[in-house]
Amino acid sequence: MGAKKKLKRKVKSLKAALKAQMTPEVKKVTVSPLAPAAFPDLPQVKGARFATAAAGVRYTGRTDVMLVQLDPGTVMVGTFTRSATSAASVQDAQAKIAGDSPDGACILVNSGNANAFTGARGQESVKEICAAVAQKLGVPETRVFTSSTGVIGEALPHERIITVLDDLVKGLDESGLPAAARAIMTTDTFPKGAAATLEIEGMPVRIAGIAKGSGMIAPDMATMLVYIFTDAKISRPVLQALVSRQTGSSFNCITVDSDTSTSDMLLVAATGQADAPEIVANSEAAKAFDAALGAVMLDLAHQVVRDGEGATKFVEVAVSGARSDADARKVAFSIANSPLVKTAVAGEDPNWGRIVMAVGKSGAEADRDRLSIRFGPHLVAVNGQVAPSYEEDLGASYMKGQDLVIGVDLRLGTGAATVWTCDLTNRYIEINADYRS
Amino acid sequence: MGAKKKLKRKVKSLKAALKAQMTPEVKKVTVSPLAPAAFPDLPQVKGARFATAAAGVRYTGRTDVMLVQLDPGTVMVGTFTRSATSAASVQDAQAKIAGDSPDGACILVNSGNANAFTGARGQESVKEICAAVAQKLGVPETRVFTSSTGVIGEALPHERIITVLDDLVKGLDESGLPAAARAIMTTDTFPKGAAATLEIEGMPVRIAGIAKGSGMIAPDMATMLVYIFTDAKISRPVLQALVSRQTGSSFNCITVDSDTSTSDMLLVAATGQADAPEIVANSEAAKAFDAALGAVMLDLAHQVVRDGEGATKFVEVAVSGARSDADARKVAFSIANSPLVKTAVAGEDPNWGRIVMAVGKSGAEADRDRLSIRFGPHLVAVNGQVAPSYEEDLGASYMKGQDLVIGVDLRLGTGAATVWTCDLTNRYIEINADYRS
Repeated sequence: MGAKKKLKRKVKSLKAALKAQMTPEVKKVTVSPLAPAAFPDLPQVKGARFATAAAGVRYTGRTDVMLVQLDPGTVMVGTFTRSATSAASVQDAQAKIAGDSPDGACILVNSGNANAFTGARGQESVKEICAAVAQKLGVPETRVFTSSTGVIGEALPHERIITVLDDLVKGLDESGLPAAARAIMTTDTFPKGAAATLEIEGMPVRIAGIAKGSGMIAPDMATMLVYIFTDAKISRPVLQALVSRQTGSSFNCITVDSDTSTSDMLLVAATGQADAPEIVANSEAAKAFDAALGAVMLDLAHQVVRDGEGATKFVEVAVSGARSDADARKVAFSIANSPLVKTAVAGEDPNWGRIVMAVGKSGAEADRDRLSIRFGPHLVAVNGQVAPSYEEDLGASYMKGQDLVIGVDLRLGTGAATVWTCDLTNRYIEINADYRS
Repeated sequence: MGAKKKLKRKVKSLKAALKAQMTPEVKKVTVSPLAPAAFPDLPQVKGARFATAAAGVRYTGRTDVMLVQLDPGTVMVGTFTRSATSAASVQDAQAKIAGDSPDGACILVNSGNANAFTGARGQESVKEICAAVAQKLGVPETRVFTSSTGVIGEALPHERIITVLDDLVKGLDESGLPAAARAIMTTDTFPKGAAATLEIEGMPVRIAGIAKGSGMIAPDMATMLVYIFTDAKISRPVLQALVSRQTGSSFNCITVDSDTSTSDMLLVAATGQADAPEIVANSEAAKAFDAALGAVMLDLAHQVVRDGEGATKFVEVAVSGARSDADARKVAFSIANSPLVKTAVAGEDPNWGRIVMAVGKSGAEADRDRLSIRFGPHLVAVNGQVAPSYEEDLGASYMKGQDLVIGVDLRLGTGAATVWTCDLTNRYIEINADYRS
């Protein structure tokens, strides 16, 4: 009967519509819309070998441990979180990094558990892992660096990691870095890698790095987990100086949610196996290497923001005309961390009033009636009020873009700073309201 | 036919279910679930009269202006935002509040437009309004205080306000305070009022106040808009000292979203018309008045948090054992402003690891391995690790409550601080991603 058939069809279509409504939009999101088109080609760095394994620390069906073996002669430097509650592995690595050593070095990283706020048990786990790696690969324990990333406050089942060590050692390979970028992911939606090759006296020097990070991103001193490898010949003090300075303008200039991790760690390993001559301080070679290293670090830092939890917009906040660089940085972070600015960006609302609010609360010197604000190329406000040339439509259409620039000129001095952030969306709440459950 | 009837019923019920799903939960929220059961009874304060009107500044179908007339002899004190980009009305009121005056005073407040970042035009609007009110009510312009709250950066159509002045003057009445609490609302979901009556030498002194605020709440020096009226006889310096101190432990101890308004203003008017004798500094009467005033201010401050945009939980963060009170405050606000803590609370997740993170990033001195954390009565972590007595079920069931206490003991000294906040939910994003559109 026609009517019955019709009703049955109706029931079917209503059921489908209901199901669609009950499947929240957020479940469909897999990879950040801001992710790079593809993972980059990473050059092989002589003297550095990588392996990954699935130890089942927390996740199933994926790799969660990476091991790096670095040849004797490798120089190790790093920067670390300034959190007062930093994790056991951070404190251990910090203590070890200061010294030179003729020996090789190893890095072991697990995801799924941060081994943070785990007291004496946490330190014990680091010790056990370091001892096992040292024994298997024949390096002193003082040359084994570990990182852990994931849930805070739960005991790390380190024996699961030690169990897969033999497999890891067997798998060590110079081409293993891209796989390592996957093994260290937690809430990341894509693996992060960046590379550069420069020439010194006609001979190539290679830099390749990986990073993880997506939430709890407001690095302070270093960020998240970042590992960069180079075959450059370079001394520890020269490399450390370059890395510290570049950290200041890359990882220390990003924020996803103003929350600083207890586990931030950046390690840079220079194997010294390039044919190019040694890079000495203040040389032309040092300048070239510095620029290449900086580019790799900034690229990785941007990728962390592009994978910001729930992010749909990548936002550069460029502040100029401040009384000092420090003041400019205060203003830039006040804007980049403001929930009201970030939700306005999410809503594609050119709400420049909230920029003014964020400037005002920053603690930096500001004069309301000198301030100018730009959204990309559009001058929005000047001398403390809306610019005569500005029309709301211009701002509204600009805000529909995916990569945005918010420019603020305080017109008080020559201080400047640029930081990067993302928008604040429902998806951030979804991820973090039930990350553990 | 039975089958057909059944199918029709099925269609009907599916349609209803679909409709329910398509009406987002957020649309159903009208009043904050944390709102007090009812607006309190406010005592009439002799010498203070109130009126409201619908001037159509931005909203339609509701009142958006309140006028207060205060008798000659009234003492006015206040605290104001420390934002470097404060609004024209704030700067005007700040300049006027410092002096004594034998004249009466007036307060005119509009909602819908904050008249902030409107340059010279904004100052002109304040001047026009003050002149008109002064002329209508026969007080000097220096005794007219204005506030504006709402959208930043748009010119205030002050002529609409001036047009309704005659109606306002006609409507002035001692019983008009509750209606005034409604007229100053913006994204507030309920009007906020609080009152206390104390006795001095057997004679009553009345205090009644109203407030507005819901988002952009991280007051710095004062908060939002708060107006408190009392018939106490009290000098300006004595009253200002009490108000400044109580601001420090009420409005300056709350945060909804870490964003500080450009328009924060607290005005307290004492008409001196109570029969009770004058309250002099350091007297028993001053102590009693201080306590009553403090209770009214804290009540209003809590109501602002309870109306936090999207809030579903009211959270007290109590920090003790810090090296100093300032350190305790840093830690408390670091927890109260952390998006990761606030989303965990929204998700009813007893994620104490995020508390540790927030302690670590606060900048205050802390020792990870001394720290203890409580959720209400439950000791969660002690000496830097999970407490032996703690079970996740205890925390999970506690977090289902609506009023929560997060306790942190740093065990380093005697510094303490308590602040209040709410959770961070999708509704906050919804409200702020399209507040202006």
